[in-house]
Amino acid sequence: MHHWIKSALDDIGEEIFALAAKIYPICRSITGDGVRQTLREIGEHIALDVHEVPTGTEVFDWTIPREWNIRDAYIRNHKGERIVDFSKSNLHVMSYSVPVNARMSLADLRKHIYTLPDQPDLIPYRTSYYAENWAFCMPHRQYESLPDETYEVVIDSTLTDGSLTYGEYFHKGEAEDEFLLSAHVCHPSLANDNCSGIALLTHLAKQISRRRTRYSYRFLFAPGTIGAITWLAQNESRVSRIKHGLVVSMVGDGGGPTYKKSRRGNAQIDRAMMHVLRHSGLSPTVLEFYPYGYDERQYCSPGFNLPVGLFQRSQFGTIPQYHTSADDLAFIRPEALQESYRLITAAIDVIEKDDTYRNTMPKCEPQLGKRGLYGAIGGATDAAAANMAMLWSLNLSDGTHSLLDIAERADLPFDVMHRAAELLRKHGLLEITESRAGTRAI
Amino acid sequence: MHHWIKSALDDIGEEIFALAAKIYPICRSITGDGVRQTLREIGEHIALDVHEVPTGTEVFDWTIPREWNIRDAYIRNHKGERIVDFSKSNLHVMSYSVPVNARMSLADLRKHIYTLPDQPDLIPYRTSYYAENWAFCMPHRQYESLPDETYEVVIDSTLTDGSLTYGEYFHKGEAEDEFLLSAHVCHPSLANDNCSGIALLTHLAKQISRRRTRYSYRFLFAPGTIGAITWLAQNESRVSRIKHGLVVSMVGDGGGPTYKKSRRGNAQIDRAMMHVLRHSGLSPTVLEFYPYGYDERQYCSPGFNLPVGLFQRSQFGTIPQYHTSADDLAFIRPEALQESYRLITAAIDVIEKDDTYRNTMPKCEPQLGKRGLYGAIGGATDAAAANMAMLWSLNLSDGTHSLLDIAERADLPFDVMHRAAELLRKHGLLEITESRAGTRAI
Amino acid sequence: MHHWIKSALDDIGEEIFALAAKIYPICRSITGDGVRQTLREIGEHIALDVHEVPTGTEVFDWTIPREWNIRDAYIRNHKGERIVDFSKSNLHVMSYSVPVNARMSLADLRKHIYTLPDQPDLIPYRTSYYAENWAFCMPHRQYESLPDETYEVVIDSTLTDGSLTYGEYFHKGEAEDEFLLSAHVCHPSLANDNCSGIALLTHLAKQISRRRTRYSYRFLFAPGTIGAITWLAQNESRVSRIKHGLVVSMVGDGGGPTYKKSRRGNAQIDRAMMHVLRHSGLSPTVLEFYPYGYDERQYCSPGFNLPVGLFQRSQFGTIPQYHTSADDLAFIRPEALQESYRLITAAIDVIEKDDTYRNTMPKCEPQLGKRGLYGAIGGATDAAAANMAMLWSLNLSDGTHSLLDIAERADLPFDVMHRAAELLRKHGLLEITESRAGTRAI
Repeated sequence: MHHWIKSALDDIGEEIFALAAKIYPICRSITGDGVRQTLREIGEHIALDVHEVPTGTEVFDWTIPREWNIRDAYIRNHKGERIVDFSKSNLHVMSYSVPVNARMSLADLRKHIYTLPDQPDLIPYRTSYYAENWAFCMPHRQYESLPDETYEVVIDSTLTDGSLTYGEYFHKGEAEDEFLLSAHVCHPSLANDNCSGIALLTHLAKQISRRRTRYSYRFLFAPGTIGAITWLAQNESRVSRIKHGLVVSMVGDGGGPTYKKSRRGNAQIDRAMMHVLRHSGLSPTVLEFYPYGYDERQYCSPGFNLPVGLFQRSQFGTIPQYHTSADDLAFIRPEALQESYRLITAAIDVIEKDDTYRNTMPKCEPQLGKRGLYGAIGGATDAAAANMAMLWSLNLSDGTHSLLDIAERADLPFDVMHRAAELLRKHGLLEITESRAGTRAI
Repeated sequence: MHHWIKSALDDIGEEIFALAAKIYPICRSITGDGVRQTLREIGEHIALDVHEVPTGTEVFDWTIPREWNIRDAYIRNHKGERIVDFSKSNLHVMSYSVPVNARMSLADLRKHIYTLPDQPDLIPYRTSYYAENWAFCMPHRQYESLPDETYEVVIDSTLTDGSLTYGEYFHKGEAEDEFLLSAHVCHPSLANDNCSGIALLTHLAKQISRRRTRYSYRFLFAPGTIGAITWLAQNESRVSRIKHGLVVSMVGDGGGPTYKKSRRGNAQIDRAMMHVLRHSGLSPTVLEFYPYGYDERQYCSPGFNLPVGLFQRSQFGTIPQYHTSADDLAFIRPEALQESYRLITAAIDVIEKDDTYRNTMPKCEPQLGKRGLYGAIGGATDAAAANMAMLWSLNLSDGTHSLLDIAERADLPFDVMHRAAELLRKHGLLEITESRAGTRAI
Repeated sequence: MHHWIKSALDDIGEEIFALAAKIYPICRSITGDGVRQTLREIGEHIALDVHEVPTGTEVFDWTIPREWNIRDAYIRNHKGERIVDFSKSNLHVMSYSVPVNARMSLADLRKHIYTLPDQPDLIPYRTSYYAENWAFCMPHRQYESLPDETYEVVIDSTLTDGSLTYGEYFHKGEAEDEFLLSAHVCHPSLANDNCSGIALLTHLAKQISRRRTRYSYRFLFAPGTIGAITWLAQNESRVSRIKHGLVVSMVGDGGGPTYKKSRRGNAQIDRAMMHVLRHSGLSPTVLEFYPYGYDERQYCSPGFNLPVGLFQRSQFGTIPQYHTSADDLAFIRPEALQESYRLITAAIDVIEKDDTYRNTMPKCEPQLGKRGLYGAIGGATDAAAANMAMLWSLNLSDGTHSLLDIAERADLPFDVMHRAAELLRKHGLLEITESRAGTRAI
């Protein structure tokens, strides 16, 4: 699988960015046409299955809420000027705001306005999914300068029985065991959170769809929290197939990278991501699991305890752009998206190739020289590292260490170790152990 | 149990100090009337059982020694002046000094004098329990200025068959499992070591006597080493009931706090004390077990290996006042005693409440919002911490983590975690596992 | 065993140095008369068994190569002057060079010359065991000043069927379990690498031959890689007797000391060496096992996985003298050899004496005072350390901790702990557990 990743790298960042830019303007929420429109855009790239789950459906402790849609919203002053206009930024309306059409004093209006006093030029992002309410969001500077007059306040939204919508793409591998990749699709015009993750996973799915893989890959594009809960509720019996997983969000800024471990803490995905990040040349942050964040909260709830981590660049909640209008298309960059793509695919590559080999000549070292193996791995790879990779894989391939185990022990990149092991395998010095060969495809 | 601790805090430091001050003047040793008088003072507060164990009784490898009592002691110069006088400080006489009544030269007297050349104004504390001898202790400055004359030297002591005396207070809890709290009562006028510990445990016993508790509590007031050995020998068959324990000494100075772990190193008392100290806002020192110190030496001998740690403020042997006349009532303070009391009771509180809960809705998160649980824990507790405490207790309550495990993992104070867990339990989201509920009382 | 080590220390460094100096001039390689002559010198000190293994013998994946011998070699200029002369330094000829006798231009000659441009005054050490070739090694400064003329080039060597030679010395102990000590004997005039190791092990064998020991000791003097492989191939069925082992090389410089752990990482030899080094007063480096280096590569191959570490002073490859003519007799010193000897024998001493004791009075402390045990261990040993050693060995001798475990936990030197334990054993307070006593000899 290695080379497709490399070959895909050249313009994948631009492609991901283009899709992110296309879906950025859409007003998404946890239900409604914004999600459907987003899934249609994804469907231009991959054969997405779109699921509709009716309002009122019970999913574990939750119930699918009414569907929310919005056509327009504004605040008009006495001159009839739209001083706040939904069509300029969908962040202006608190998500799930009930309809309103009223005239009111500034004092009354102010009870329904959110601002960020410390970031007075930005519009905050606010939601009120499960408590009926309405509100506008605006820059604090504007809020402070509003004249004391009567305003016409209109939110032309509907909150009616309908359905929750999510999309799923499945790629069949050699094994039934699955790798889950999940992005939330409920945020409106926030580029990094999570147009970036949606677009990256779409292009990753597109690439994977063209390959033979060991694992099956499941891509889930669903609204945060309620979407993941819905999917888990509807797939409860099949969830145990998930052997690895990543929640992907905020992958377009140049910060981080950040990896938050699964609840298990030492799952293979945790080890693979940490390995890749450590050899990335970047300055990664690895966080222990904690029960707050994105949909890993649901995947890692104790009744599932799936091996699913969270990959981000900057960590949510830690940057000033987070959940504000500053999380726009200027905040994400093709190079960062490409780098995020490279890191995720490198981790997938580790998991696809992490076999356990066995040294066929375990007593003393085999004579590498007579086989021309010293210095046999040339090119970009450092010759000394390649030689050490051969010695390490011979020494530790006693049936109890996987290639990732060995790469970690040797402090060498997995890729270098894998190339060494495969070279030795071609010379009959290593073999893949029976137990793993059965599930091995590529 | 939480609130009684808080309510008791207001003047408990003053009360402990008052008792420490009352017993400070008494000349205690490992046997004799000083111990009896001390136990009588304790008995003014709690219904103490006083035990007398006759001289010659074999207790494991040891034998109860003869009983030592002293009425008077002095050194008189040629003018008949008492230049050293037991009635001024009982530290002047080495504990267990045999009787002497002699006239002797300065040169001969000097063979029986201990001083502290590096602390020339202080009287050292010395004992000679198991080798017959006599000696005086005095400030080095005085020692150096003694004129070369003949002195009258009198120690009016007796060393006769009698008994060793110790006191015990037992509070019956719901369970037979016991929490041992032990203080040595053999040091003469040393305020911190250990009038402070005796007085603190007396008042703690008084408070606990008024409550329902899960565990039974056993308070032991016994001479150091031989007293603990005697108690263990006489209670050998019941010792296995002790599930937690603390030796308490030197709790009145403002140093530390210091916790020395039990020999087991990861007993629940070790974890509870470390947790409490880490969240104390102080600068605690935690020491691994080592086989030297107070009566934890006996409780943690390999044949018992009880889960008993040592709580102190300053660590014994590390401060200049240790075992000198500077360990007087000015060295201990009500505030420090109160703080020590607060730390010990907080650890007891952890152990009383450290249940293992089980999440009744382990698949995905339960919807806290619809139950009004977000922000439901107000008051002094930080709302964000309370929310995280709920999420953590839900996520880790899979039957394998106790509440202390979860508090440690979440890096939140046990009390915050316990309040969150109890709130969730009231809402049916957590339940206490069967295995623990059986021993649960409050 | 302790005292023989101490008594031997006085001039052992000088004796080791003398033997190293005697074998330094010999031109060793992986086969040939140089090895035989070296083994004869060793045989002057101990009753060495010398083994000859014929060319062509298969040893695991390897084959015994042809035997190489050399009589003379030189480069002569047009005046007939030997500008490079094997008799001045055997490093001048690449080891295993095929015979040559030719006249050639400077340009052609240069293709067969190795130098060290960064160390222009030193002769490098080079070999070509498994690829037929010839070369001279010389200082880079000389190489650069060679006039452009025709040279007479002679290497009077033979490469013929013969045998590989190694030496073995076995000392029978009480147990069949063996301690392996191994030094490579294939390097020509390099004093530290490994005349030092050969000479140290020879004198160690001589000392051990005079003693009763618990373990049997096997000393192996064999050419690097192929020699160890040969020995393992010929002794495959007996290899499991090896319970501890050390490869010894480069023990004459004053650097390090360096210990590289066995592949197991926590073998008793690893723990003993680390303990000794930590208490050595030196600044040791301990390295995790890695599959490159000396013959520990073979002993620690996965099919054997023997508990064999590597002891060195400076670490191979890290010092400028390594594999150059600067690794001469001036580079090694009797004091450093003596110190290396002391460290190795101290580790052997730990392993010989690392019994598991049992406290015969495990309930409470036994009364040491009545037995006169406090302060009973005097002399050079610090009294407080001796007392603590007694308390620690009593406290932890519960049948699950060996004396080394206890010494590590107590942070006391093994020797102090052993003296304390033996004193307590003489007083009946400790006994050696049955399971170990059976294999205990001294």
